[in-house]
Amino acid sequence: MKTTNIRERYNLVRKYTEQICQPLETEDYVPQPVPFVSPPKWHLAHSTWFFETFILKNQVSDYKVFDETFNYLFNSYYNNVGDRVLRTDRGNITRPKVSYVYAYRKYVDEHMNILLATLGDEKALTLIELGLHHEQQHQELLVTDIKYILGHNPTFPVYEPDHNLVDDENSETGFVQINEGIYEIGYQGDGFCFDNEQGRHKVYAQNFEISKSLVTNEEFIEFIEAGGYQDFNLWLDEGWSWVNENQIDSPMYWHKINGEWHYFTLAGLKKLNPKAILCHVSYFEAWAYAQWKEMRLPTEFEWEIASYHFAWGKRWEWTNSAYLAYPNFTKAKGAVGEYNGKFMINTMVLRGASVATSPDHSRNTYRNFFHTNERWQYTGIRLVK
Amino acid sequence: MKTTNIRERYNLVRKYTEQICQPLETEDYVPQPVPFVSPPKWHLAHSTWFFETFILKNQVSDYKVFDETFNYLFNSYYNNVGDRVLRTDRGNITRPKVSYVYAYRKYVDEHMNILLATLGDEKALTLIELGLHHEQQHQELLVTDIKYILGHNPTFPVYEPDHNLVDDENSETGFVQINEGIYEIGYQGDGFCFDNEQGRHKVYAQNFEISKSLVTNEEFIEFIEAGGYQDFNLWLDEGWSWVNENQIDSPMYWHKINGEWHYFTLAGLKKLNPKAILCHVSYFEAWAYAQWKEMRLPTEFEWEIASYHFAWGKRWEWTNSAYLAYPNFTKAKGAVGEYNGKFMINTMVLRGASVATSPDHSRNTYRNFFHTNERWQYTGIRLVK
Amino acid sequence: MKTTNIRERYNLVRKYTEQICQPLETEDYVPQPVPFVSPPKWHLAHSTWFFETFILKNQVSDYKVFDETFNYLFNSYYNNVGDRVLRTDRGNITRPKVSYVYAYRKYVDEHMNILLATLGDEKALTLIELGLHHEQQHQELLVTDIKYILGHNPTFPVYEPDHNLVDDENSETGFVQINEGIYEIGYQGDGFCFDNEQGRHKVYAQNFEISKSLVTNEEFIEFIEAGGYQDFNLWLDEGWSWVNENQIDSPMYWHKINGEWHYFTLAGLKKLNPKAILCHVSYFEAWAYAQWKEMRLPTEFEWEIASYHFAWGKRWEWTNSAYLAYPNFTKAKGAVGEYNGKFMINTMVLRGASVATSPDHSRNTYRNFFHTNERWQYTGIRLVK
Amino acid sequence: MKTTNIRERYNLVRKYTEQICQPLETEDYVPQPVPFVSPPKWHLAHSTWFFETFILKNQVSDYKVFDETFNYLFNSYYNNVGDRVLRTDRGNITRPKVSYVYAYRKYVDEHMNILLATLGDEKALTLIELGLHHEQQHQELLVTDIKYILGHNPTFPVYEPDHNLVDDENSETGFVQINEGIYEIGYQGDGFCFDNEQGRHKVYAQNFEISKSLVTNEEFIEFIEAGGYQDFNLWLDEGWSWVNENQIDSPMYWHKINGEWHYFTLAGLKKLNPKAILCHVSYFEAWAYAQWKEMRLPTEFEWEIASYHFAWGKRWEWTNSAYLAYPNFTKAKGAVGEYNGKFMINTMVLRGASVATSPDHSRNTYRNFFHTNERWQYTGIRLVK
Repeated sequence: MKTTNIRERYNLVRKYTEQICQPLETEDYVPQPVPFVSPPKWHLAHSTWFFETFILKNQVSDYKVFDETFNYLFNSYYNNVGDRVLRTDRGNITRPKVSYVYAYRKYVDEHMNILLATLGDEKALTLIELGLHHEQQHQELLVTDIKYILGHNPTFPVYEPDHNLVDDENSETGFVQINEGIYEIGYQGDGFCFDNEQGRHKVYAQNFEISKSLVTNEEFIEFIEAGGYQDFNLWLDEGWSWVNENQIDSPMYWHKINGEWHYFTLAGLKKLNPKAILCHVSYFEAWAYAQWKEMRLPTEFEWEIASYHFAWGKRWEWTNSAYLAYPNFTKAKGAVGEYNGKFMINTMVLRGASVATSPDHSRNTYRNFFHTNERWQYTGIRLVK
Repeated sequence: MKTTNIRERYNLVRKYTEQICQPLETEDYVPQPVPFVSPPKWHLAHSTWFFETFILKNQVSDYKVFDETFNYLFNSYYNNVGDRVLRTDRGNITRPKVSYVYAYRKYVDEHMNILLATLGDEKALTLIELGLHHEQQHQELLVTDIKYILGHNPTFPVYEPDHNLVDDENSETGFVQINEGIYEIGYQGDGFCFDNEQGRHKVYAQNFEISKSLVTNEEFIEFIEAGGYQDFNLWLDEGWSWVNENQIDSPMYWHKINGEWHYFTLAGLKKLNPKAILCHVSYFEAWAYAQWKEMRLPTEFEWEIASYHFAWGKRWEWTNSAYLAYPNFTKAKGAVGEYNGKFMINTMVLRGASVATSPDHSRNTYRNFFHTNERWQYTGIRLVK
Repeated sequence: MKTTNIRERYNLVRKYTEQICQPLETEDYVPQPVPFVSPPKWHLAHSTWFFETFILKNQVSDYKVFDETFNYLFNSYYNNVGDRVLRTDRGNITRPKVSYVYAYRKYVDEHMNILLATLGDEKALTLIELGLHHEQQHQELLVTDIKYILGHNPTFPVYEPDHNLVDDENSETGFVQINEGIYEIGYQGDGFCFDNEQGRHKVYAQNFEISKSLVTNEEFIEFIEAGGYQDFNLWLDEGWSWVNENQIDSPMYWHKINGEWHYFTLAGLKKLNPKAILCHVSYFEAWAYAQWKEMRLPTEFEWEIASYHFAWGKRWEWTNSAYLAYPNFTKAKGAVGEYNGKFMINTMVLRGASVATSPDHSRNTYRNFFHTNERWQYTGIRLVK
Repeated sequence: MKTTNIRERYNLVRKYTEQICQPLETEDYVPQPVPFVSPPKWHLAHSTWFFETFILKNQVSDYKVFDETFNYLFNSYYNNVGDRVLRTDRGNITRPKVSYVYAYRKYVDEHMNILLATLGDEKALTLIELGLHHEQQHQELLVTDIKYILGHNPTFPVYEPDHNLVDDENSETGFVQINEGIYEIGYQGDGFCFDNEQGRHKVYAQNFEISKSLVTNEEFIEFIEAGGYQDFNLWLDEGWSWVNENQIDSPMYWHKINGEWHYFTLAGLKKLNPKAILCHVSYFEAWAYAQWKEMRLPTEFEWEIASYHFAWGKRWEWTNSAYLAYPNFTKAKGAVGEYNGKFMINTMVLRGASVATSPDHSRNTYRNFFHTNERWQYTGIRLVK
């Protein structure tokens, strides 16, 4: 791990979080419209709580916590760190005020800067690095949660008029051919990676061809117009229930207005760009689309093997791999061990990164994971034949 | 109806709404922690929308609505006035901002003041009077919804340090004896009343004795300590389910801390005053308490007949009458007809008024109504034997 | 109470229960398709358990209970008598077999006959009388629950080919005029009545006119064809939610087949008789229909006062009175006190009796009660103007 | 495929289904206590419907279906074959009677025997073979569903007094060491296999050691007594919610009576045999137990590779593999294509077979799959270190 510039890096990452929130009104920081979306205020405080709890309280002998109630309010899911607000109640917390949360950030940042000026403890530096990557994960969630909150206001408010997160197009076409054989999977090197990217291990891949481009809006419209959402033969059984119970007939944020497709973006409601890469689809939709094309989704191993041969990083790409531990996965002791391992069930892996991913936060070994019905992330589809 | 000072009265009532919200932080205006509690921002806008929709749009020929989206956002339940936001989604609306809602109030108030300077139309004046009483109803809801929002913040924030809404004590004791016979019920006079207070009609009352005082906290603690919440024989069948499913063991806002009863008030968390009048109980609790005392709740007719003989106005008092239409009740045509009549089912009547009721908004013929499990209003218990 | 022929009466009532079940197949005795419908097997056993628990165990010193598990299995809602199977789990009890339940009936009947040959205890005779009326209530529920079970089999099985329970027509027309004044309400006499029919007390009635006939199928079809189920102005707010959430567009058991109305009857699926009295409507539908006719439902007091002037007994008739205690209602001590009083909330009163009511089980003071959305009883509509 | 004795085999399999039901009372055939358990009557009819629909209707030109309503009643999940009864409503179907379902079986069997005497069509024979394996799958479900139905009767009825399905013990101890390398996975040969066992393909396995014995009751009691159900660090996040929401503290069918563990078996309620192999645990419990032992569950590939080296077939064994398609998995066209593929999501693979599995229905390539909270099958735990 590069420790030389950790202080500079700390301040850059922390500042970026606040930049994401800069266009918000105070009111936008508060609500939690669905359980999986957290209030921006909560993200700001929780990522700060992480440094206070795991670094400052352990490393600074006379550290005085900013506010005794925050451990209860801003612990996300660490059972080892004590009781916490029910996840579904995050939107009911009006106090602390937003300005007090910013004061919290300032307080913790000041103490972190003092600490970082002298810190030599290797284990602490590792935890700080984890804290920064943790904060970058919340930066991405901030973008998608802000989009969800604004996009579910009936008036479709604009976040930034010039913002462009879903209009990007593919730069390549065609398929890459990969030969069968043994490949190595998982993180290697001495930079940072999450525990779930290890242990590095061998897998056997079959021959496959993988698309260099992601599915576009106009390609997906063909699926819609061919009756894809109405043909049960294309869907997983649970996907078919999901479509019917929720009356799904298009990707998230799509609205048909006077016969024309629009979508909500962070720049407001706009006409759909047909050439842009498809975004905001669930695993169920990705699977059904692949069925319709008589292709399939790649496994996460195929994706990682082939990732050197195509451009990626615009969409989180659904794979056909369930999120499970790699061979020799080891869970850290204590609260940090709750980071990843306990979620390894009933979700599917996404690979790549998205336009909402923070700079410097992408690796082709990174394993993201969501439930098969979730689609508020910048998700997309890459096909294999 | 007194029309002379309607303009002055309009401005007083409207100003009082904003005074109630004065101690709030911007964040407090946003959430809807449970469906029956509305965000303060919503109350501010909805009561304004009422004047814009039912008065200005009809009376001012060139009136330009403040914002076209507000009819969708701030219609409460008037099907005749078009589609609206789902009641459960009120807490997800971050825009308009609070300041824009205040601008809306200012805009409508200016137009109303111009109109009121010259208005002679009797029907319009009746609607304005309804609008003011409507706003006063929302003032009371504002107080109770603010209390709910703050009281469900884990940190129990203070609304006003000197606020005292639940510490009042009874000024009288003993029982009043009422003789059986025919009595007249319902509003009479030429002031304002709601449609549900009419038609005035005769009822036959039996002999009864009604308490001049309301049940106090220390009296209710006796019930708790006698195991009242654990004895199924004291409860209605649905009440017993409610107690068990929600693990109810005390009135709302009560907290036992280190063996001592406290309650959340608008002045913050405080030690319970044993002499104060009991507050925040459901109909189920009122009924069970009466069973335990081997007495009963009064009917709304008994209450109205006896109301001349005791002090009232601190608590909304649960009666043993279901909320149903009086003989000759008539529903107005159109949207205003949706005001009361369509809610006349599966609720019980409360009589009196409470410390949260706005000045000038009490009548002994006023009929409030809530579901049997609701207790976030300032509700209390008066017994009959 | 007539005690002379109690033994004969006991045997008649008990036998009639079994006659109702005679057309059933063993399989029909088992299911509980919705929580409010109980398996026929359960009714047979529960009504027997009532005699065993409240009579034989107390009156016969060396009585040996038939099966120790039955108190747990067949107690309905008497908390005072111990734990019991969850109401929603009645349909999962496959054992005891149906034949064993009949053996239980035989065993209890034999012991009851021995007891009745010599019994002089007045209190016991009162309880036996209650047990017989209780069994008659379950006879009516047996008819309606059997109809529900068969009517929700996709194949619409026939109970009895010649059975006719919904084809009866009105014998009278026109309205009866009742003058305002004081009337006495509640049971008077020395026959049996339930506790909820007392105390007898005075009420003041206004002038009203009540229909001598009940609403017919063809009259209700007019409401349907006029768009009654689509017009929110006709419905209570909770009724409108009920209609929309359950996609209600006709009375229960009605099916439109090839453009023609049919209904499921105990004689199977048949063409609707337009002249027959309407059946199987909820309170919400009754209320909406009355709104549409610009009339209203009678209160239970109006119904009782006027009941001497029209034919009744074909349908349970919805009234506009909530089910609440009469003045001086007294609850018996112990388990029998749970019979009626604890249900006096959030239901509406029905008056009269229906074609499913057992012979000898009707009184014009009888108060039935159901939730406002329930309609599997033989319910109907009588209007007041 | 061996076609020589298909007729004999057909009759053996069909007869065995009826033998499983032989100890049942008519009442036991009816209920569906939870959606995942089907009424025995339904299994009897559905497995017959499979032959009628996919064989007789296609192969016998003048075949007359036994009852036109059965396609609606007894189709399980084949969207391609038309509408069907909602899965959750199977327990409400009282007709056809049980005896009529047996008549249905007889009728179809007679026609199948005539057909099988002359049939040469290869595709039809393949479908008949599928139908027999399908029926064997339902035989296993019959055993587990019967156990669920009887075991959820409060009286714990006995299926067969001498039945012994959970008392078997391990015959081996110790661990098998497997070396890393390439292995072939999936069915090979010319017997029957399901589509999900193919295509056969290479995988790369790491070094691992796998237990030759399954976890026993007494071993699992150690976990319970060590507080395993109360220690969140041992559980997956969803598993921890499952434990708490359902108040799980032991395997299914376990009852602590007077301080001693008992379990419900098909021979009735019995004292737990501590030496017997643990049964009826969910994936969540298997995972937590492995955590506690600081070992893990095998992947399905590890299991298949090692399966030649230990005894298996008593318990379905949870693996740490999600149920997903093998490389080159191909879905058949039409209704038969709905057999397996559409369920490949959000379940985990079980390998082996159980004491409830029908004779001749086991393969070490067989892939069973259930949700992570399901445990009414005869499931067990094998560990890897």
